[in-house]
Amino acid sequence: MDYVSFFQQAVDALKHEQRYRTFAEIERDTRRFPHAVWHSPQGERDIVIWCSNDYLGMGCHESVVEAMCATAREAGAGAGGTRNISGNSHAIVELEAELADLHGKDAALVFTSGYVSNQTGIATLAKLIPECLILSDALNHNSMIEGVRQAGRDKQVFRHNDLAHLEELLQAAGARPKLIVFESVYSMDGDVAPIGAICDLARKYGAMTYLDEVHAVGMYGPRGGGVAERDGVMHRIDVIEGTLGKAFGVVGGYIAAKRAVIDAVRSYAPGFIFTTALPPAVAAAAATSVRHLKESGLERARQQAQVAKVKRALDLAGLPQIVTQTHIVPIMVGDAEACKAASDMLLADHGIYIQPINYPTVPRGTERLRITPGPFHDDALIARLADALTDVWTRLGLPFVAQAEAAE
Amino acid sequence: MDYVSFFQQAVDALKHEQRYRTFAEIERDTRRFPHAVWHSPQGERDIVIWCSNDYLGMGCHESVVEAMCATAREAGAGAGGTRNISGNSHAIVELEAELADLHGKDAALVFTSGYVSNQTGIATLAKLIPECLILSDALNHNSMIEGVRQAGRDKQVFRHNDLAHLEELLQAAGARPKLIVFESVYSMDGDVAPIGAICDLARKYGAMTYLDEVHAVGMYGPRGGGVAERDGVMHRIDVIEGTLGKAFGVVGGYIAAKRAVIDAVRSYAPGFIFTTALPPAVAAAAATSVRHLKESGLERARQQAQVAKVKRALDLAGLPQIVTQTHIVPIMVGDAEACKAASDMLLADHGIYIQPINYPTVPRGTERLRITPGPFHDDALIARLADALTDVWTRLGLPFVAQAEAAE
Repeated sequence: MDYVSFFQQAVDALKHEQRYRTFAEIERDTRRFPHAVWHSPQGERDIVIWCSNDYLGMGCHESVVEAMCATAREAGAGAGGTRNISGNSHAIVELEAELADLHGKDAALVFTSGYVSNQTGIATLAKLIPECLILSDALNHNSMIEGVRQAGRDKQVFRHNDLAHLEELLQAAGARPKLIVFESVYSMDGDVAPIGAICDLARKYGAMTYLDEVHAVGMYGPRGGGVAERDGVMHRIDVIEGTLGKAFGVVGGYIAAKRAVIDAVRSYAPGFIFTTALPPAVAAAAATSVRHLKESGLERARQQAQVAKVKRALDLAGLPQIVTQTHIVPIMVGDAEACKAASDMLLADHGIYIQPINYPTVPRGTERLRITPGPFHDDALIARLADALTDVWTRLGLPFVAQAEAAE
Repeated sequence: MDYVSFFQQAVDALKHEQRYRTFAEIERDTRRFPHAVWHSPQGERDIVIWCSNDYLGMGCHESVVEAMCATAREAGAGAGGTRNISGNSHAIVELEAELADLHGKDAALVFTSGYVSNQTGIATLAKLIPECLILSDALNHNSMIEGVRQAGRDKQVFRHNDLAHLEELLQAAGARPKLIVFESVYSMDGDVAPIGAICDLARKYGAMTYLDEVHAVGMYGPRGGGVAERDGVMHRIDVIEGTLGKAFGVVGGYIAAKRAVIDAVRSYAPGFIFTTALPPAVAAAAATSVRHLKESGLERARQQAQVAKVKRALDLAGLPQIVTQTHIVPIMVGDAEACKAASDMLLADHGIYIQPINYPTVPRGTERLRITPGPFHDDALIARLADALTDVWTRLGLPFVAQAEAAE
């Protein structure tokens, strides 16, 4: 049997649908971030990254990098085992204490990634609650959808951020145990959940809450605890999930909650038990980043300022951005091929790297460029970005919108 | 509703069954490995680690640590995004080329862990093969079981390493597509699959093969390609899965296969697509380790020598080891409480750290201590280990076996 042909057909199908992805090979440079080197087919090129999830540049922060190096030299490049079998490093224990404190919870548990946190975390929580009904936001991330699926529990999907629909489902569910899973900042649209109002519904109908703050930790709240901290409702959320791989600039994920909840997930989650622990060097780098952003509001303030400037520049240029309250700035294209062409032209002709966001990451017809301005994108880079986008939009014949008078 | 009580009950159930796990907090020391510091409830204690999966001590190798530090300083502590969205670092592309070469395959794909490689890798492969039947070894690791489950395909479990049973199932399956998933070295028993004979069956019945070599890569074969390389059958395996977190000493996992297979998994596997890439510093450290162990056979030779000495010392002491052909040396206890007591006494009284292996990692009644000797366990440490085990066995009244005459 020709097994390879099955895989070749699967790849060909993507190419046929214009959904085949190529990954730009990037070499970041800590001394010049967001400038980087692109290893293009024609050789090395200097570029500016405008789509990084290292939102605050903390992955290039000297204290974070030096914590990684110092701990690697002390304790080695890896953990050497699972958390249970020789891999429970001093550094990862300290990181968990730092994260519990960040969210004002009893305890925290670190996973190899945010993806795994959601996948094995949600599945394990829901399995441990008898007769649990999971209520899941329609735009939840793939990792949450997988967690919900693997729980094997009844589930209902509520319309995105729709409180009336959520209440309807909660009411219909009656007295059985219920787990509401949702995000604070939705990564592709940049919109924000009404966290306090969802907590009100959870209390009214006796539901437990699980909040994914991966696109918010480090960036919102006085200590970087996320949107729930900013909104003063962090204590009302039962389980907060976050990542160490975006604003904290490293890699890994976690949940924070009451001690018994964390202890149960620690003891029952297969995706936690049966996997090698994060290296102590990674844990130390992440803990340094978390500590830094608890104390320092500079990066957050500068990010917000530059985000506002980008939004204004795009508005003035008449580019069709989706209006958001967050650091995520999507520009709508609405066509996979045009989206890829725009991205390719920005990179090849302007040295600006913004990856096209196509299906399945977003629904078909809503293909977009997703810009994530950070504190290191200075005013000159912002002006260059607006000019480059205008050039590409013009050359591709993409629609502009009326320049907003209000923006003047 | 009192949700916390559900989790407290789950934890209490484990305590009641003597299955509650506590993690020893360990601080490794690159300059003195396998010596380390144990952060015990009574303060810091010097110990020797005898249960690390950093089998060759490569996590403490200067070249590996320095590669991590140099790349962190150049490119930062994290990747900054998924592989598709700004996280495709030059270092991870180079690592994949190194791994493809290691296994003599067209291409390789790196995941955040070996666990994720199996989970999303097996699930994606089987989903892309129409009408696929999965044939899975009874002792496969939890990550493979989860991958098989998430594939949602028909599956049949063959008795562990039982060629007759596997053939029976293959024959009964008829002409439909079939995927055989198995391991080379089984981690808790240390036994080895008849890889060549399984390849013979796969050819005879037209099945595809997926081999997990996580407990073998770096340690077997002239270039550390694993047992399949040692046995001269690496080219006959369709997909080889390995880890960067055990003998290579860092963290992460991978698969290696024909280009179309890798490209399809890269394009379809949710656990690959929707997660932050491994940091370039981690990728560079792992690539350095892989390269080193391709060239150097010293670590493998020294490991094998020290493993043989440990087996002989345990034999002479009459300790009930499971005879293996590998670097894994299990000593049978057969009772969860006694196993934990033996481990506790070794640590507290002898400064020897060997984590108890209890259910669910092994079946009930087969609880054991699992010893993993490495090149850095010198003869004096081996003598101390045998003495300490003899003392603990005597004090706990655990059974000795007749001292093997043959061992003399």
